[in-house]
Amino acid sequence: MAKALVYIQSGGPTALINTSLYGVIKEAKKHKDQISGIYGSLNGIEGLIDDRIIDLNKEKDDTIELLLQTPGAALGTTRYKLPKDIRDPLYQKIISTVQKHNIGYIFINGGNDSMDTCQKLSILCKKQNLDVKVIGIPKTIDNDLAVTDHCIGFPSAAKSVINLVKQICTDARCYKKGKIFIIEIMGRNAGWLTASVDLLPKNARPDYIHLPENYFDLDEFLKDVKETYQKKGHCIVAISEGIQFERDTSTARVDAFNHVQLGGASDALAKIVETRLNLPTRSIELSLIQRADSILASKVDHDEAIECSKLAFESALKGETAKMVCIIRKSDNPYKVEYKLMDIAEIANVEKTIPFEMIGGKTEMTEEFRNYLKPLIQGNINIKYKDGIIEVATLEKHLI
Amino acid sequence: MAKALVYIQSGGPTALINTSLYGVIKEAKKHKDQISGIYGSLNGIEGLIDDRIIDLNKEKDDTIELLLQTPGAALGTTRYKLPKDIRDPLYQKIISTVQKHNIGYIFINGGNDSMDTCQKLSILCKKQNLDVKVIGIPKTIDNDLAVTDHCIGFPSAAKSVINLVKQICTDARCYKKGKIFIIEIMGRNAGWLTASVDLLPKNARPDYIHLPENYFDLDEFLKDVKETYQKKGHCIVAISEGIQFERDTSTARVDAFNHVQLGGASDALAKIVETRLNLPTRSIELSLIQRADSILASKVDHDEAIECSKLAFESALKGETAKMVCIIRKSDNPYKVEYKLMDIAEIANVEKTIPFEMIGGKTEMTEEFRNYLKPLIQGNINIKYKDGIIEVATLEKHLI
Repeated sequence: MAKALVYIQSGGPTALINTSLYGVIKEAKKHKDQISGIYGSLNGIEGLIDDRIIDLNKEKDDTIELLLQTPGAALGTTRYKLPKDIRDPLYQKIISTVQKHNIGYIFINGGNDSMDTCQKLSILCKKQNLDVKVIGIPKTIDNDLAVTDHCIGFPSAAKSVINLVKQICTDARCYKKGKIFIIEIMGRNAGWLTASVDLLPKNARPDYIHLPENYFDLDEFLKDVKETYQKKGHCIVAISEGIQFERDTSTARVDAFNHVQLGGASDALAKIVETRLNLPTRSIELSLIQRADSILASKVDHDEAIECSKLAFESALKGETAKMVCIIRKSDNPYKVEYKLMDIAEIANVEKTIPFEMIGGKTEMTEEFRNYLKPLIQGNINIKYKDGIIEVATLEKHLI
Repeated sequence: MAKALVYIQSGGPTALINTSLYGVIKEAKKHKDQISGIYGSLNGIEGLIDDRIIDLNKEKDDTIELLLQTPGAALGTTRYKLPKDIRDPLYQKIISTVQKHNIGYIFINGGNDSMDTCQKLSILCKKQNLDVKVIGIPKTIDNDLAVTDHCIGFPSAAKSVINLVKQICTDARCYKKGKIFIIEIMGRNAGWLTASVDLLPKNARPDYIHLPENYFDLDEFLKDVKETYQKKGHCIVAISEGIQFERDTSTARVDAFNHVQLGGASDALAKIVETRLNLPTRSIELSLIQRADSILASKVDHDEAIECSKLAFESALKGETAKMVCIIRKSDNPYKVEYKLMDIAEIANVEKTIPFEMIGGKTEMTEEFRNYLKPLIQGNINIKYKDGIIEVATLEKHLI
């Protein structure tokens, strides 16, 4: 008997999170005879716990098409962490929802924390002898998932960061006596996104790039920016939100995965620069824009999202479980990849930072990094505007 | 005998500041016989003082074309304020540069502070019996110039703000328990740019809009965001950088026009919210992005920039001086405008804020505002990318 699929969006959104959802919906619609329902879980795993499941088949075709340019998780997302103990009553609630709606396939679209959810659910199903396949689809702008060459959403975020920073640098350098600009870029403990500005030409890029992978020496940093400012009349620094230096984090919040909520590094650093150097300094946090910028989405990222979703769907129907779809690079130029399923156990809760050989120092990355990143940001997607404003999908969310 | 023109970019850049420059260069090239040179002054009026004048005719055609998508002042800009006393020796330096290069036409592209420069230069030329025509071309994302219906650059900045805020709202609302977001938008003492988010539909816009034109009541603000957060699980507020509330501005810098350097209002407000309400709060400053976003430039703005530059050029050659090109609106729908020269004395140092009848309250603007803004943000310009990255013009800057 055919079973239903349920799709889960989890963790921080990306500009392409809904493209992965689109890919699974499209693929499922092509195989209607093998599927009894195409469902979405509201706010990630919370929807399975609370039985808030919607019928994606009832959404209008136009809305589904607009998912391709809609940032933010259209189904809602969560940072909820499942308990370790499989006997926790909460798991019974999940099983109840799964059985009630005859769910046979669960797709979890997320980063390394979400792959923890993916792993726990697949173990649960195995132990309870439930015939439910659980497949992960990679998604994070941090690009810190293990095994896969890169993560869906990262190329688009990188492309957004590169273009925004180029425009900011072009603007920031037009005064004779300008300012010190500290641009904060996301990525948690991995510097992938910050490092992406290295693709910019010398005259339109930050003077320094500080990654969490490198030791951050505050005194050296102050010396550098002072020297550059005195020489050029301005200084632009790109820093990763995860760089470590002494600052007041007493009011920082911690999420369910015990991760400190980042953001604010550039503000803290700008204050230190102002105080210690007495030079005009401005902090620019790219904030949500870098992960919500559909307009600058990469076509390569878009195409790969669709391919990953296709493989996820096909594999689940073939009986695969406890796996995540990975992108395996075959060559940089011409750019070639393969898609493969890999064990979720190798991926969940592992954090992949930039390897040593890709980092050139505090002003640049190596050629190896550039060869890695360049093919990922190619091509634009066609954006639909109405009266000058980007259109986004709003799901009707018919609960079942 | 034919005389040369010199072009001056002044004040804070916009995404279209170089489109106005492009317009004058193109027009001048069509009338080569009437012009002995097409020059640019480096870093605004500073170039005329220090004799740093470049020959724009020597720039490559490709570079000139790229000006149409280049943010930041390609000639460099300044916030330099000319002295009040016309006998100041500095004016002698300007006269010397003007005479040395046989300059007969000065174009000043800027906001109300720059129109002060425009006015002073035209008075100087008149008093010294110099045959030099001085014409202003409006430019400011703040949209606060008097007489003209709107300012070149504002429509593009508004379009950028509207699209960025829509994407931010779409992302920010996808957690069940989210945050309070305070988005800071530029505009100095005028709320035009902040108010532009009012064109967004109810489900993808901020819950509150706070403009400098309205009295800001901090206690009421805290009550509002608390209530909205409790009801919806998130709250998004758009504030203008110029709203007034009690905060520490002891470290704020002051520019040559005695204007306090703004920015930081959302940070200060977020800290107050965190402290007083103990709710997760995040400040998002759109910062330089909103004024450097060529990708989201408005086609209407682009076309009007070219028209204004054309009229400025023609008028100067006809002998007009001490005037600024203004856009006079004839109707909203269909959108029709006329271009006219108006006395610079009516414009310099005057600040135009949003009229009372366009403001609806703390959550919306009136229909009159929407009719005003809507036609301005229509249409996109074609952006040239190379390998996924926007191309920008870098002038060779041949000094003469």
